[in-house]
Amino acid sequence: MTKKTIAQLEAFLGESFPQMNDLNLRLEEVRPRYLRARVATSEKNLRPGGTISGPTMVAMADVMVYLAILATLGHGEQAVTTNLNINFMKRPEPADLIAEARLLKLGRRLAVGDVMIYSDDGSEATDHPVAHATLTYAIPSPS
Amino acid sequence: MTKKTIAQLEAFLGESFPQMNDLNLRLEEVRPRYLRARVATSEKNLRPGGTISGPTMVAMADVMVYLAILATLGHGEQAVTTNLNINFMKRPEPADLIAEARLLKLGRRLAVGDVMIYSDDGSEATDHPVAHATLTYAIPSPS
Amino acid sequence: MTKKTIAQLEAFLGESFPQMNDLNLRLEEVRPRYLRARVATSEKNLRPGGTISGPTMVAMADVMVYLAILATLGHGEQAVTTNLNINFMKRPEPADLIAEARLLKLGRRLAVGDVMIYSDDGSEATDHPVAHATLTYAIPSPS
Amino acid sequence: MTKKTIAQLEAFLGESFPQMNDLNLRLEEVRPRYLRARVATSEKNLRPGGTISGPTMVAMADVMVYLAILATLGHGEQAVTTNLNINFMKRPEPADLIAEARLLKLGRRLAVGDVMIYSDDGSEATDHPVAHATLTYAIPSPS
Repeated sequence: MTKKTIAQLEAFLGESFPQMNDLNLRLEEVRPRYLRARVATSEKNLRPGGTISGPTMVAMADVMVYLAILATLGHGEQAVTTNLNINFMKRPEPADLIAEARLLKLGRRLAVGDVMIYSDDGSEATDHPVAHATLTYAIPSPS
Repeated sequence: MTKKTIAQLEAFLGESFPQMNDLNLRLEEVRPRYLRARVATSEKNLRPGGTISGPTMVAMADVMVYLAILATLGHGEQAVTTNLNINFMKRPEPADLIAEARLLKLGRRLAVGDVMIYSDDGSEATDHPVAHATLTYAIPSPS
Repeated sequence: MTKKTIAQLEAFLGESFPQMNDLNLRLEEVRPRYLRARVATSEKNLRPGGTISGPTMVAMADVMVYLAILATLGHGEQAVTTNLNINFMKRPEPADLIAEARLLKLGRRLAVGDVMIYSDDGSEATDHPVAHATLTYAIPSPS
Repeated sequence: MTKKTIAQLEAFLGESFPQMNDLNLRLEEVRPRYLRARVATSEKNLRPGGTISGPTMVAMADVMVYLAILATLGHGEQAVTTNLNINFMKRPEPADLIAEARLLKLGRRLAVGDVMIYSDDGSEATDHPVAHATLTYAIPSPS
């Protein structure tokens, strides 16, 4: 089991990142080193052409790896993103986004995770992701 | 000279990316393959600890390379980001951010640019950037 | 099935990339959009501390996505890498490396793949990867 | 002045990275947080089409940021690359490569640098780089 429940993570998110409320991120599954979430589309996230913006997907990936660290460690609130790389592969349909985050490394000082983002627009979604991100977080020493 | 003026670029930004209005991005200089901008800090951009959020810096870098393409080519509105890589190097002070975007490549199909982001907090800012991003845009064929 | 067999891909590699012979890359499985390979360690690949060098892992990831494109399309020899991002997560043991490449996107002009590299040093290898890379290839128009 | 001279850095490179001897990397200028180098082309570095290979440019960028850390700090031999991102922008001519490395951050635990690689093929080389890389090094605690 993880050290934080979905309810605890969502409450923390709402309090600490009020600017993320626009995102409508809902956690669907949490396991050690793994997190799945859904973002409902909204006008705020769209850009010309009616698709969800890149920075919205970046924010989604960023917060998900952060929450996966918290859920797995039970702490780590002071962790900060040091590197983010994202490939945008397909214009998302005007449908919900689903994202899966995995921690590839969870060291004392650095954590690395990746996030695959799909458009929830039909059956072959998982073969044709919308975006894929990898992130590094620095975890401050608990001093 | 560039094919779009600062006033034209800012008008385009306000119309086409209304969600960027929160960013308060002001263009300070535009030359072929180069753009300098300033982001005034605001509560919306902050995260715990009182610094400007990573996704805000991502949005800033993304739109600046896009505008540098438009300014240099005179067209390219349909260009889309395909890759973004960003290193966050220093917690920004609660001060304005200044960013300089350069186009490293402007081909028929792909453009590559980088963006250096400084905190406008004193004299040695340019030696100690807050973040550095590199981006690739795909430019659709004019069909 | 793929449009190229393991034997065809290895023959192509030996002829067209003789400088890769030092790598001792052996393909173990090929499926559409998927490739698994093994690199036997050798002195040439080592750096101080006795681990396999970063550039060796880069070369491995690079050639694997290239071969996955060839295997899936049956052509694409002229494809060129436009972006590569790699996270090095663990010092590899002096053991063979195993790598799995997936194509996340295979468009007409751009292909994106990622490669997970493990050290073949025991049972929990797949939970603790040595490195993870994402790559973009530009595929020239067949004119 | 830097804490290591060009002669010291080149001697260290030859001893500690004998596999780099194939690269023919010659340092041309060293300043704090800055390094310029040249790679003479050779058959070993070429790929189909007669251009210098991507992994060769990766190795070049990797070693240059490493040497810039050593030159600036006077120590740091145990530093390891944790992230590398590179954009390949132009097929290099069969000419020497010139590369300039800058350190963007040199913290106690992490260093970030970027490297611009040009083909030394004429006057406008610096406006049309062949490749641009950003790297992160983790610097172990001196325990």
